[in-house]
Amino acid sequence: MDEHRMHRCIERKRDGGELSADDWHGIIGAFMEGAVDESQIAALCMACVWRGMSVEETYAVTEAMVSSGATITFDPNRGTVVDKHSSGGVGDIVSLAAVPLAAACGAHVAKLAGRALGHTGGTIDKLEAIPGFNATLSIEQFTQQVERVGCAIAAQSDAIVPADKRIYRLRDRTATIPELGLLASSIVSKKIAGGAHAFVFDVKAGAAAFMQDPAKAHQLAARLLELVARFGRRAIAFVTDMSEPLGRSIGTGLEVIEARDLLRGAGEGRALELIVRIAEAMVEECGLTDAPARCARALADGTAYTKFIEMVRAQHGDCAALESMHPGNGLEIRANSSGYVQAMDVVRLGHTARRLCARDSMGGLRMTARIGDRVEKGQALAHAFGRSREEAAHLGQAFAIGPAAVEPAPLIYERSISAIK
Amino acid sequence: MDEHRMHRCIERKRDGGELSADDWHGIIGAFMEGAVDESQIAALCMACVWRGMSVEETYAVTEAMVSSGATITFDPNRGTVVDKHSSGGVGDIVSLAAVPLAAACGAHVAKLAGRALGHTGGTIDKLEAIPGFNATLSIEQFTQQVERVGCAIAAQSDAIVPADKRIYRLRDRTATIPELGLLASSIVSKKIAGGAHAFVFDVKAGAAAFMQDPAKAHQLAARLLELVARFGRRAIAFVTDMSEPLGRSIGTGLEVIEARDLLRGAGEGRALELIVRIAEAMVEECGLTDAPARCARALADGTAYTKFIEMVRAQHGDCAALESMHPGNGLEIRANSSGYVQAMDVVRLGHTARRLCARDSMGGLRMTARIGDRVEKGQALAHAFGRSREEAAHLGQAFAIGPAAVEPAPLIYERSISAIK
Repeated sequence: MDEHRMHRCIERKRDGGELSADDWHGIIGAFMEGAVDESQIAALCMACVWRGMSVEETYAVTEAMVSSGATITFDPNRGTVVDKHSSGGVGDIVSLAAVPLAAACGAHVAKLAGRALGHTGGTIDKLEAIPGFNATLSIEQFTQQVERVGCAIAAQSDAIVPADKRIYRLRDRTATIPELGLLASSIVSKKIAGGAHAFVFDVKAGAAAFMQDPAKAHQLAARLLELVARFGRRAIAFVTDMSEPLGRSIGTGLEVIEARDLLRGAGEGRALELIVRIAEAMVEECGLTDAPARCARALADGTAYTKFIEMVRAQHGDCAALESMHPGNGLEIRANSSGYVQAMDVVRLGHTARRLCARDSMGGLRMTARIGDRVEKGQALAHAFGRSREEAAHLGQAFAIGPAAVEPAPLIYERSISAIK
Repeated sequence: MDEHRMHRCIERKRDGGELSADDWHGIIGAFMEGAVDESQIAALCMACVWRGMSVEETYAVTEAMVSSGATITFDPNRGTVVDKHSSGGVGDIVSLAAVPLAAACGAHVAKLAGRALGHTGGTIDKLEAIPGFNATLSIEQFTQQVERVGCAIAAQSDAIVPADKRIYRLRDRTATIPELGLLASSIVSKKIAGGAHAFVFDVKAGAAAFMQDPAKAHQLAARLLELVARFGRRAIAFVTDMSEPLGRSIGTGLEVIEARDLLRGAGEGRALELIVRIAEAMVEECGLTDAPARCARALADGTAYTKFIEMVRAQHGDCAALESMHPGNGLEIRANSSGYVQAMDVVRLGHTARRLCARDSMGGLRMTARIGDRVEKGQALAHAFGRSREEAAHLGQAFAIGPAAVEPAPLIYERSISAIK
């Protein structure tokens, strides 16, 4: 791929044409070698946002990205290994709880996770609220832990899909993130390189989601399933609500506490429901029968919690410290008026919680009110925690309260399964 | 303009919105200062190709580009100064001849010209085929010569509109050239900074033109007129044919010879017609009455030629050498079959002539046949000149000859005048 051929590729995309697999491999390869500069990639990405990308093109980009770095392999003869991915949410404790829950049911779970981005939390940041927890595993440590413990959650290493990291940053700077094919290739390349044989995707929809419109979230979910199938791997995709925080807690330590308590049997509401549904899908993907009954049993008999402790210990987390984690004193965030909670500014809640966490791993928010709740003026809607919790004093403004009763959005819009080609 | 604001500007353009004048000034300024990188400009340019640019946006970009460098000023009390611009053609000797012709009629002509680009020739390269000719004038030399001689043709200096040079190169690399507003701002910013009060634009249409479709060329012409009017200056725009070389000659020295001979009364055909029409427009723009009669007289009585010699001498060209310039021996390029000349691969003719010139300033092509001519197999269609003229031996392939008679395209599609706002 020289500059002249790159020029013709940009032109073809600009004019509504399709690039070949060979073109895409050439482009990604040349970019990584420095033979094609960032401005050409930026123009090409904008042309992709304009013209879209076919499934064939998306597959080619994904393949090229996977081959830009190291890949992990799990021997399929030792059992199906599953990974789980969320498109990013607020108060989203699913990974923390569903990974050990599915492992307690017999699934092998190899989860590569990311850090907080924008207003959304990151599973690695949350786990690192547990003193001593090590999320930086070598490929060998990661695969061995999955085999030995049944689950591991590790930070995405720089050695895996380095092309994605560079291209994603460039797209972020050049406002070329929102293109279905580029989004899907960024997600799937990391998952494929991570080595699992099956995947469960949780694509969020709603005001605080990357894809606000459920129809767009559906398109992304469908593209993820199609892509994974082309790699000969299995997947189930959910489209779930992100118009309010999923769980009660927003914040690294607070979410660990909520996940810990949920795994000990104190779960409730939407977070519990989604965790169970996603863990069931993970168990099902591993070819195990009777997933709902297995999950219910693992929660009821404490084996899910035991598996969580086992995973934390394997990754050098201080389990005594985990057991004794507690939030400290909360500051009440009160309703400015009486009525029904009609909507929340979840992006603002997410950003506030990230600020509170930044200074104190026990900082963050705990929600009392949910969308649809009747509240009276002065009643607590949430509590703020952490050393700088006073910052959150005016967060009542993040809640829209009105006279009309509203129904919360459905928790799960969709659950789809891929057909292997 | 920080990176965050730049990001919002790209997003707005991507989503079909319009940027404010303040945004555009900020973007160009920040780019020149290095605060905004090339990849962001590339993505923005591709979004402009996608969404188009309003006249207001085009004006703002043009203004911002003009203010990125030095500008030239002519005192309007000393007479209207006119400049002439072509969008680039093959065998296009208009500037060489129309500039002294208009000056001989009393117009003040301050022409800033470019170099050869792609298959098209550049006026500066042509003039430099005259031994000693100096196209690198300081702003002072340029303005003084216009005042003293009545005309000057100088190379665009790097000090004038430096933003255009950098952005054009970036657009060239990222396949974001073809956007009406960006094209118009690139052309008009250089013309406005060049200081003339009035302009004549020759926008080419046809197979060898930048805008092949006459309708697109019309749009560009209309945008140029509108932009110039917003700067409070006058303009006339032509849309003219470039489906065959304009004159008989293609090549730096050969075109100088053709222009020289035309100014001495030996002109004919389409080149003479367009030169006269454009010179008349330049004279008219300078507020002089009876432009057609003035031009006819200046050609007939030799004053146009005298003005040409005066300009060449003022720019240190060797006039004796100019007088004695001749092409040497030509190599016949013969028709491969009998019939009518239906089309020419003008891009190929242009590239071949540039190669022949590169080794010999008297290299190039001289056309015998024109579109619509009846030719017999083996008859000369053109002659190739220069030290490496053998290269052109197979150029008969560049002529499509068929049994059906064809009409050549009209020479002038359109002549429009701007309304000052």
